[in-house]
Amino acid sequence: MDGGPTVGELTEAEVIALFADPAAPAFPEIVVPNGDDAAAWRARPGMAQVATTDGLVEDVHFRRSADPEAIGRKLLAVNLSDLAAMGAEPRLALLAVCLPRDLPAAFAARIGQGIGAAARAHGVHVIGGNVTRSPGPIVLHATLLGEVEPGRVLTRSGAQPGDRLLVSGELGRARLALAARERGLDPGVVGAGLDDPQPRMALGRALAAAGVVRAMCDVSDGLAQDAGRLLAGLGARIDPAALPVGEASRVLAAALGLDAAEEALVGGEDYELLFAVAPAALDRARAAAAEAGTPVTEVGEVTAGGGIVRTDGRPVGRGFEHFERRG
Amino acid sequence: MDGGPTVGELTEAEVIALFADPAAPAFPEIVVPNGDDAAAWRARPGMAQVATTDGLVEDVHFRRSADPEAIGRKLLAVNLSDLAAMGAEPRLALLAVCLPRDLPAAFAARIGQGIGAAARAHGVHVIGGNVTRSPGPIVLHATLLGEVEPGRVLTRSGAQPGDRLLVSGELGRARLALAARERGLDPGVVGAGLDDPQPRMALGRALAAAGVVRAMCDVSDGLAQDAGRLLAGLGARIDPAALPVGEASRVLAAALGLDAAEEALVGGEDYELLFAVAPAALDRARAAAAEAGTPVTEVGEVTAGGGIVRTDGRPVGRGFEHFERRG
Repeated sequence: MDGGPTVGELTEAEVIALFADPAAPAFPEIVVPNGDDAAAWRARPGMAQVATTDGLVEDVHFRRSADPEAIGRKLLAVNLSDLAAMGAEPRLALLAVCLPRDLPAAFAARIGQGIGAAARAHGVHVIGGNVTRSPGPIVLHATLLGEVEPGRVLTRSGAQPGDRLLVSGELGRARLALAARERGLDPGVVGAGLDDPQPRMALGRALAAAGVVRAMCDVSDGLAQDAGRLLAGLGARIDPAALPVGEASRVLAAALGLDAAEEALVGGEDYELLFAVAPAALDRARAAAAEAGTPVTEVGEVTAGGGIVRTDGRPVGRGFEHFERRG
Repeated sequence: MDGGPTVGELTEAEVIALFADPAAPAFPEIVVPNGDDAAAWRARPGMAQVATTDGLVEDVHFRRSADPEAIGRKLLAVNLSDLAAMGAEPRLALLAVCLPRDLPAAFAARIGQGIGAAARAHGVHVIGGNVTRSPGPIVLHATLLGEVEPGRVLTRSGAQPGDRLLVSGELGRARLALAARERGLDPGVVGAGLDDPQPRMALGRALAAAGVVRAMCDVSDGLAQDAGRLLAGLGARIDPAALPVGEASRVLAAALGLDAAEEALVGGEDYELLFAVAPAALDRARAAAAEAGTPVTEVGEVTAGGGIVRTDGRPVGRGFEHFERRG
């Protein structure tokens, strides 16, 4: 990517064009497309509207040495994961892109290609955005808009003592990959958990449709911290031995001298779904997950109080605090 | 604001709380309020949904020496102006806030108070957001969501040769204020145009309801450049002598050795509305503006081509290009 122009050598219109996706399909409900002061569209009758915003900041969430397409995909993924946690179907996105003028235009274009690929993969239409110059790091934000049947929306409230806690996929990969890189080691396949998380859209929709989940959230700040938010006023007993940790993560954790289960308990950025299910509904929840093709694992039980503890009673440490982490 | 904690000494939850508005009124259409993975609400039946996103970046759009409440108000204003340009009614906002850890928490809190005040003033409910650490400047983005009757939405397309061009309020204040500050001079009352622009919500709604506007946009990048976008494929003849320039702007321009009308032609960030009206609808457009309590001025005429020129035929220079401006 050396030798080409930097974004500072482009006009604003040319920078915006780096983030356009010529392969984007038409959006039938559009009223005013991208390119006006604002975009306008028709909401589907009877559906609740859902919105979230999240961002990625250079030297906080990624390094300039990362694959720019993966950065673009992850920008959508972290937002999509929030919609999945509501049981919502993603529909529209707006981008807010802040770029240093010395950034190669080819790097920005590849971020745009990653965003476009993720948008197409998830049926998301980018209907607006803004680009501005950054006097410092690359700062990328997206706002995702989706829809959900109002009676099916899944929130963080509603768990009851005795409910089973389940989690999708694997935990701890992002944290282990980060730990490996901080020591100058290649995390191998575990790195995909950090660089290219896959939002659990199908699982979110299947669980919403099945009506078997009492409370759900995504695991962005770590199981311990997110479970604490999901179960405010209640508690949970988590079985570290039951946490879904893959063979590759165990190997990497061992090489780093870390306990893979501990990392799975407190590691952030896994973007899996954590949900509470009444014991009587457990089979139906498992069937919905199987239908979505997403592995889920029972990791513990909701308790009436006492915080988030291990099965042996020891409290679980905290996960990410954005204003403290990563030095 | 010295002596208090910095945002880096707060938890993420405490930083988020700096941007909460305890005086915010209830939002009746809410389904899932702020604080979950995403917010959910009911769109009003029959209304088109409208969305836009825009941001303010430290050392690009403002300096740390600025009034933080004005920064917060302006963050909403620049987005509200885009909704006004569609004839839309603002309803919801999401914030994306990126703060350096050494920023005094009191400074961040005052930005939040400015956002809250602007939101309340315009009936906007902040339903979500994200805070993250910045390794560089303060970066603030907002996404604004509104609604408009689908048959009334005002876009940039539709102007015809012979249409009159009108603009609200005054032009050039933001550019003159910036020029004064760059020379170390106090712009006095003209500074309000740069620091505290007032989005033209009432005018946008009144013009949409009156159905008299053929094309409209807001003047964020300067009359010359925004008129060029509004009239793509067409042209315009602008009368520099007719541009709305207030007495204070004339005094400041003279002190700076600048031509106030020239600054009004190319200056950005005025956030006024520019719109095209058929000659036969001019009286009704003026009546709608009067009903909204917003002064409007006829500044020129749409032509079949030839670009954006002055009445004497000389072309008008370009306005802002985000990736070039301000050094």
